[in-house]
Amino acid sequence: MSHPHPELGPPPSLPEGGLRVIPLGGLGEIGRNMTVFEYGGRLLIVDCGVLFPEEEQPGVDLILPDFSVIRERLDDIDAVVLTHGHEDHIGGVPYLLREKPDIPIVGSKLTLALIEAKLQEHRIRPYTLEVKEGQRERLGPFECEFIAVNHSIPDGLALAIRTGAGTVVHTGDFKMDQLPLDGRLTDLRHFARLGEEGIDLLLADSTNAEVPGFVPHERDISGVLRQVFAQAEKRIIVASFASHVHRVQQVVDAAQAYGRRVAFIGRSMVRNMGIARELGYLKVPAGLVVDVKALDDLPEENVVLICTGSQGEPMAALSRMANRDHQIRIRPGDTVILASSLIPGNENAVYRVINGLTRWGANVVHKGNAKVHVSGHAAAGELLYFYNITRPKNLMPVHGEWRHLRANAALGAATGVPEQQIVIAEDGVAVDLIDGKARISGKVPAGYVYVDGLSVGDVTEASLKDRRILGDEGFISVFVVVDSTSGKIVSGPSIQSRGSGIDDADFGEVIPKIEAVLSRSAQDGVTESHQLQQLVRRTVGKWVSDNYRRRPMIMPVVVDV
Amino acid sequence: MSHPHPELGPPPSLPEGGLRVIPLGGLGEIGRNMTVFEYGGRLLIVDCGVLFPEEEQPGVDLILPDFSVIRERLDDIDAVVLTHGHEDHIGGVPYLLREKPDIPIVGSKLTLALIEAKLQEHRIRPYTLEVKEGQRERLGPFECEFIAVNHSIPDGLALAIRTGAGTVVHTGDFKMDQLPLDGRLTDLRHFARLGEEGIDLLLADSTNAEVPGFVPHERDISGVLRQVFAQAEKRIIVASFASHVHRVQQVVDAAQAYGRRVAFIGRSMVRNMGIARELGYLKVPAGLVVDVKALDDLPEENVVLICTGSQGEPMAALSRMANRDHQIRIRPGDTVILASSLIPGNENAVYRVINGLTRWGANVVHKGNAKVHVSGHAAAGELLYFYNITRPKNLMPVHGEWRHLRANAALGAATGVPEQQIVIAEDGVAVDLIDGKARISGKVPAGYVYVDGLSVGDVTEASLKDRRILGDEGFISVFVVVDSTSGKIVSGPSIQSRGSGIDDADFGEVIPKIEAVLSRSAQDGVTESHQLQQLVRRTVGKWVSDNYRRRPMIMPVVVDV
Repeated sequence: MSHPHPELGPPPSLPEGGLRVIPLGGLGEIGRNMTVFEYGGRLLIVDCGVLFPEEEQPGVDLILPDFSVIRERLDDIDAVVLTHGHEDHIGGVPYLLREKPDIPIVGSKLTLALIEAKLQEHRIRPYTLEVKEGQRERLGPFECEFIAVNHSIPDGLALAIRTGAGTVVHTGDFKMDQLPLDGRLTDLRHFARLGEEGIDLLLADSTNAEVPGFVPHERDISGVLRQVFAQAEKRIIVASFASHVHRVQQVVDAAQAYGRRVAFIGRSMVRNMGIARELGYLKVPAGLVVDVKALDDLPEENVVLICTGSQGEPMAALSRMANRDHQIRIRPGDTVILASSLIPGNENAVYRVINGLTRWGANVVHKGNAKVHVSGHAAAGELLYFYNITRPKNLMPVHGEWRHLRANAALGAATGVPEQQIVIAEDGVAVDLIDGKARISGKVPAGYVYVDGLSVGDVTEASLKDRRILGDEGFISVFVVVDSTSGKIVSGPSIQSRGSGIDDADFGEVIPKIEAVLSRSAQDGVTESHQLQQLVRRTVGKWVSDNYRRRPMIMPVVVDV
Repeated sequence: MSHPHPELGPPPSLPEGGLRVIPLGGLGEIGRNMTVFEYGGRLLIVDCGVLFPEEEQPGVDLILPDFSVIRERLDDIDAVVLTHGHEDHIGGVPYLLREKPDIPIVGSKLTLALIEAKLQEHRIRPYTLEVKEGQRERLGPFECEFIAVNHSIPDGLALAIRTGAGTVVHTGDFKMDQLPLDGRLTDLRHFARLGEEGIDLLLADSTNAEVPGFVPHERDISGVLRQVFAQAEKRIIVASFASHVHRVQQVVDAAQAYGRRVAFIGRSMVRNMGIARELGYLKVPAGLVVDVKALDDLPEENVVLICTGSQGEPMAALSRMANRDHQIRIRPGDTVILASSLIPGNENAVYRVINGLTRWGANVVHKGNAKVHVSGHAAAGELLYFYNITRPKNLMPVHGEWRHLRANAALGAATGVPEQQIVIAEDGVAVDLIDGKARISGKVPAGYVYVDGLSVGDVTEASLKDRRILGDEGFISVFVVVDSTSGKIVSGPSIQSRGSGIDDADFGEVIPKIEAVLSRSAQDGVTESHQLQQLVRRTVGKWVSDNYRRRPMIMPVVVDV
């Protein structure tokens, strides 16, 4: 198995007839999936997603892939192919199109509908090409063929890319539910054909490679839902992902079976389900779905609310219900179902919501106490099937943290992919397919690009470090005005502090120390304000550390007049 | 089931012959367990633990129970009984003894050894009384009897408290492993005796009440460990809790079986295992444990390191190994075992460590991919046994968030405890046992007390709010010196910013706006610096919001000379 070397340099220019694969996101993390393919001087991009920040990135709204490697070559891009409509695959598109609005966007019907709705909010009307499973399209030098895959959102596509360098297959996100709700299977017969024809390089979803066995059927949830519906005496509130059409479909079906009306709550849920109904992906009997206002006229036992907030997002409907700051007020006997995964890092937020709902008397059903969620990604057992059917010559695990990529590589090796033809890359690592062999050729910039408010990229690691210090320790600012000639203090020292946990009154102790150090330096003829500021910083810093064992940020300003 | 009313007032003074139970921590959270029992004007305290902060409490080291309700009555305290040696049960003792060092501490041999080691660091020598299972002790008016319980640390005790008000049983933390490693069972025969005699009020551990079935045996891990040992070709590094003697014992046994020497790494691990060996709780064959320095002379396949850091704590040994900033450098082929739980909220930190170790070539075994951990708390199936054996007249779930307390209450009800005799309380809620009935009688202060550096309680919710704002948005400070008579600017405006993500150069735009507003107010004869600061704050705030859609903290200082 080949790993990227820590001190990898930039890749050489691509030799004639070679194909280069550069993952700009999704390798070494779960999210911001984006892969650039280069052949014959042209570029094809697969997916362009966002990553959601962790507590390590305070105040950040979104994290984008770094576009710098393609920024100078926007005209070389023949298309952006979107495998499906999840944020971590399409969320970065508006930011890419800001740089060049006429890059063609290729995807399935639902995927395009979702990205178009998103682009509308950014006031961008994209050039799109709608494709179907089985369809072939020539995008520049890239001969593309689309394959149906099953995932936690309908209409997902995998992609085969044929060039002079060989055939590359990118699975996108997928699993292999053998009894999918919509009957649209991951097309293993199609993958088998490609395998027999010869797959030179396979990029495969690693998200669940560590999980042994098989993902249960989506439809298995239906039985659990109906059990809960059968027992619920009052309102039922279901939180799920706003894009999980099949999950919502099962809730809708259960609602109908138990004589309940359904209302959608939360902007993205209302928008997406509107799109899904319009395009026929969500099937709702006439009159079943009502406006939230109409609920007041219905008996509690005839109501189902489907809302956002399953990950404990503080602004989403469910969190606000838990905090009693939503029009829907939780009452004893309400049943709340979190029909969703629990994304690592969201545990505290989600449990806070569950405790809040419980405190108001709701019975909360979640994956911790009932089988109300199944994953959208192929587990180890499924991946083994997939590798035995496709038999790739070279394998490159994608979509996962290091532990997932490693586990996926091991599965490939177990099915007989030669170790030296398995490439574990990470974001920015260029992998070249030349003469049928995939090799790491170099590394390009692929750092985090932070979106914060209106600005993209202005928030740097340095400012995040400052934020972490400020967040942990707060700050103390000291302001002194001194006479430029005598160096005597004219005004101050005045001290302001926030978040230091030090009582304003206590700063009285340190002011004489500051005065002393300044008068001493005045006697020594030190008047340069930068030096004086250093002295003040050291004086205050020592006092805080001695008395409080803390290190708040200290901001001294000495001005002379 | 009775719940505390949101607007609960302080409890009335306790009637003659009544017993009052006040949980000061552990109800509504996992941690800082502390319960105060009052009878005949005297107090008995069971446990005094700490809670570890979440990202909602930036920069906080520890969270303590609020002692204010007992602060005026320290002389009424007959003893603090410690059920076992975990931080969330003993960590608050040093802070309580600071207020009165001679409060007697009662506990089992190991528990006392651990608290004494901790108190030594705080330079406190406590008055202690060592007790054993089966033993009876009169502590003031409280007739106490100690019962053996099995948990994830040896020598745990439950407690029966007899007073004129009846018999109260407090389980502490417990599970019911029927094949415990040390043969020391949760003494169900003893609990059965108490049950037949009549338990008027039972306080029972709720931590795993949501988990169906039974916790596997601790010794089941041994087989998994030996499988890993059998396959490991190079070093084995095991991370676990520094207090989990039985987990460590199984690693030590496996090491001996496979001809490996053991070294302990990490201050608390070295200290606790030293204590456990000395007292005979950890059994180590002579010569098996070596100093970490001695490892260099041993072949890699003969080495086991047992270290701290299983929760991804950034300063602990394992995280530092993952970050290449520890003397132990991870090499390809090393096997790392996280033989521990994954405490909710630590996921990101732990996965970061796992990815780091994997990236350096280690094979990482953790509860996500192998059965290397079992819980220390009774699951639902065990609790049902326990309730059927004890048959309490009144039940009060303890140790858990709301969802756990609710689930535990439901289990009690299922075994026949009358609904109206099940009390779901929360921190600070007084529960009185009078004439054999447990009733909520009021609420006392039980907020979080934050330890940050040397100070206890100085860090308030307000300063945490400031820290969260500073951490998310950073701050901008503006300094201006104006002439007191003319109101004209003498020096400044000078702007400093940290964490705002705004480039210093960009502030050039806002300075003229500040100058303009100040000169206008000078013309209007506004010279009061507080008013001027308001104007500056508003000017800068609007500029930031319009141009960046952010709300950093803005700190204007206008002084006149």
